Amino acid sequence: MNKGRFEAFSDGVFAFAITLLVLGFTVPMHGDAKWPTDADLTRELLKLWPNLIAYALSFAVIGLMWQNHHALFRLVARVDRKTVFLNLLLLGSTALIPFVTATLGAYPTTHAATFLYGVVLSMCGTSYNLMLWHLVRSHAFDESVNARYIRGTVVAFRVGWLTYALAALVALFLPVVSFALYITIVLYFVVPRGVDKDLEPSRGEM
Amino acid sequence: MNKGRFEAFSDGVFAFAITLLVLGFTVPMHGDAKWPTDADLTRELLKLWPNLIAYALSFAVIGLMWQNHHALFRLVARVDRKTVFLNLLLLGSTALIPFVTATLGAYPTTHAATFLYGVVLSMCGTSYNLMLWHLVRSHAFDESVNARYIRGTVVAFRVGWLTYALAALVALFLPVVSFALYITIVLYFVVPRGVDKDLEPSRGEM
Amino acid sequence: MNKGRFEAFSDGVFAFAITLLVLGFTVPMHGDAKWPTDADLTRELLKLWPNLIAYALSFAVIGLMWQNHHALFRLVARVDRKTVFLNLLLLGSTALIPFVTATLGAYPTTHAATFLYGVVLSMCGTSYNLMLWHLVRSHAFDESVNARYIRGTVVAFRVGWLTYALAALVALFLPVVSFALYITIVLYFVVPRGVDKDLEPSRGEM
Amino acid sequence: MNKGRFEAFSDGVFAFAITLLVLGFTVPMHGDAKWPTDADLTRELLKLWPNLIAYALSFAVIGLMWQNHHALFRLVARVDRKTVFLNLLLLGSTALIPFVTATLGAYPTTHAATFLYGVVLSMCGTSYNLMLWHLVRSHAFDESVNARYIRGTVVAFRVGWLTYALAALVALFLPVVSFALYITIVLYFVVPRGVDKDLEPSRGEM
Repeated sequence: MNKGRFEAFSDGVFAFAITLLVLGFTVPMHGDAKWPTDADLTRELLKLWPNLIAYALSFAVIGLMWQNHHALFRLVARVDRKTVFLNLLLLGSTALIPFVTATLGAYPTTHAATFLYGVVLSMCGTSYNLMLWHLVRSHAFDESVNARYIRGTVVAFRVGWLTYALAALVALFLPVVSFALYITIVLYFVVPRGVDKDLEPSRGEM
Repeated sequence: MNKGRFEAFSDGVFAFAITLLVLGFTVPMHGDAKWPTDADLTRELLKLWPNLIAYALSFAVIGLMWQNHHALFRLVARVDRKTVFLNLLLLGSTALIPFVTATLGAYPTTHAATFLYGVVLSMCGTSYNLMLWHLVRSHAFDESVNARYIRGTVVAFRVGWLTYALAALVALFLPVVSFALYITIVLYFVVPRGVDKDLEPSRGEM
Repeated sequence: MNKGRFEAFSDGVFAFAITLLVLGFTVPMHGDAKWPTDADLTRELLKLWPNLIAYALSFAVIGLMWQNHHALFRLVARVDRKTVFLNLLLLGSTALIPFVTATLGAYPTTHAATFLYGVVLSMCGTSYNLMLWHLVRSHAFDESVNARYIRGTVVAFRVGWLTYALAALVALFLPVVSFALYITIVLYFVVPRGVDKDLEPSRGEM
Repeated sequence: MNKGRFEAFSDGVFAFAITLLVLGFTVPMHGDAKWPTDADLTRELLKLWPNLIAYALSFAVIGLMWQNHHALFRLVARVDRKTVFLNLLLLGSTALIPFVTATLGAYPTTHAATFLYGVVLSMCGTSYNLMLWHLVRSHAFDESVNARYIRGTVVAFRVGWLTYALAALVALFLPVVSFALYITIVLYFVVPRGVDKDLEPSRGEM
């Protein structure tokens, strides 16, 4: 039950952060003086395509983080105070994503926006790795969990985190390449990893 | 339990998206210089009637989607990784509805706003149909579920989706007719379909 | 379980609507040119006191509606399609409260804002009464529920609804009196009703 | 189950309030006339560092309040009407935190913003202490709970509340010292209190 409330709170923040991404889109406003023509409005809406890419990217990022959270805590038997603290760090970083997504959508080719985006994703990755490290060290996993499966998860999380950090650094030199890297990392996580699948405890049922 | 967390997350996104629709209404602002008269404010508030129609329409749309989601997953025994992915696609499209609703409320007679609205609803419909198709193909339904009932659902979803896509196309020529079509489709789903009712497994209890 | 998901969705909308009330407060903005003095900021913040009253009022209103919803559905054995529909009507009205609260806070002495507030509360009351009427008519209550208790609830809901509608009408003539009436109605519901308490099935445990 | 819905509603408000903190950050906007340079954007984003500190502070504050709520209600056997009322008072104060955080982030060195922040935190503390006091007085705790543990919690809550109130008063004279005090109080609650740990009923499992 306690783990249940912990998961429900996390789910709430993930679900809410993912829904707030829509605030990155703002309705084109017309001054009081004149009603915009249909062509004006179409032009303004078409300008929002970088916002749409940033939206889809962040939706996938938060969706995957939620799914990883889900997959991880299915295997965890006990949630201690330190896990709660590290989880808050993770949620606090995740909840910043709507802001950096809106910034990325508004200024997609700038060093500033792409770097900021990578910094926040790296913060999420750091929290995730710290939390996983703490869970492993404190033997919080259920006894039935395969040790090789946990090692695989540790490696996958570390690789993901390093790539985010790298993409953030790239943003300082080549913003557009950095943006492409973010998309690549997400695709890496979306495509199921063959080797893990064999070890996944109850892989057929998610 | 896993299905439980999957449903809870989906419910969260549906509930937040439906509540964020209210952001389509903005409090009429007065410049710092002068306090508006009561008549000014009344006039400004009365101007919001297209927003109210768009709000009611989208509230019904999201409410029905939530209800369909609920009805569908009651029959599903297993949630696999692909279902989670297609569900994220659905939620990602749904979470855009507050934005397109606000745009529709602000510019109800434009081609741009009515077309955009239809595109997002069609995206929701597409995700729903893909997800249903995957569930059927992977035999994810509970064994007790009537095959004819599933076929009925498949047909109903496809009809709904085609009508949304059609209404979006109509928006390119006759925006107001398109708006009326959106309302009609919602009414089609609100009125219970006689033929399905007989096949519904536990129809008395929802 | 189905009732569980129905309640979870409703709770989500109530909890979200109550939290969105905070959007009625906007941070006093300073133009880019000059940083406001501390005295400027204090004056701007003090101007928000009507917003604070409107916030507290609406927080109590939504809180009480959630509590009534909770108390009502504890007694309900079955949730059918029509209940879901009437519940969406209730949630759709409730989700408008953040908007009318912000309007009331910004223009507390106008006919327009106090009338609009009353209209939305009356819509909530209407939905509640329709839903309760449907539940009674379709024998949806658990068999163990005392008939006198249900009658007491029906009367209390009807009285509350009539008073909201009355307060809305008063707003057309005397906005400030109408505002005071809204507060009075909330206090009426906050103070536990003696006669009902004796009939409440498990009154000690909520 | 009833306690379950009470906790779920509270969790919802905590989770939403914590996620709404992100609204304290606004995307630097460019006028229509000219696209800002990368350097402009970097400068604007760097100006947001007080917002980041305020964000982290409030995230920790709400996170800890949620954790305390969780820890407290694990020990509570019955939730009565008065507890629900005092809990709404607590949630109503908590839901104001996104607004006062945004104000603090925008004007971190003013008397007005630091005082307002302290007032809202003190309101949260007051509600918490009233609720705890009511729970103790009405013997709502589970019989298995150690009396010394409850006394320890009462003392800890009272100390926290007094310190918040003190920090609010300090804001009237030395805003920056007040800000530092808020951070100190949060750290006081984050660091586990040795003496309580021995008395905590099932300390290993949160």
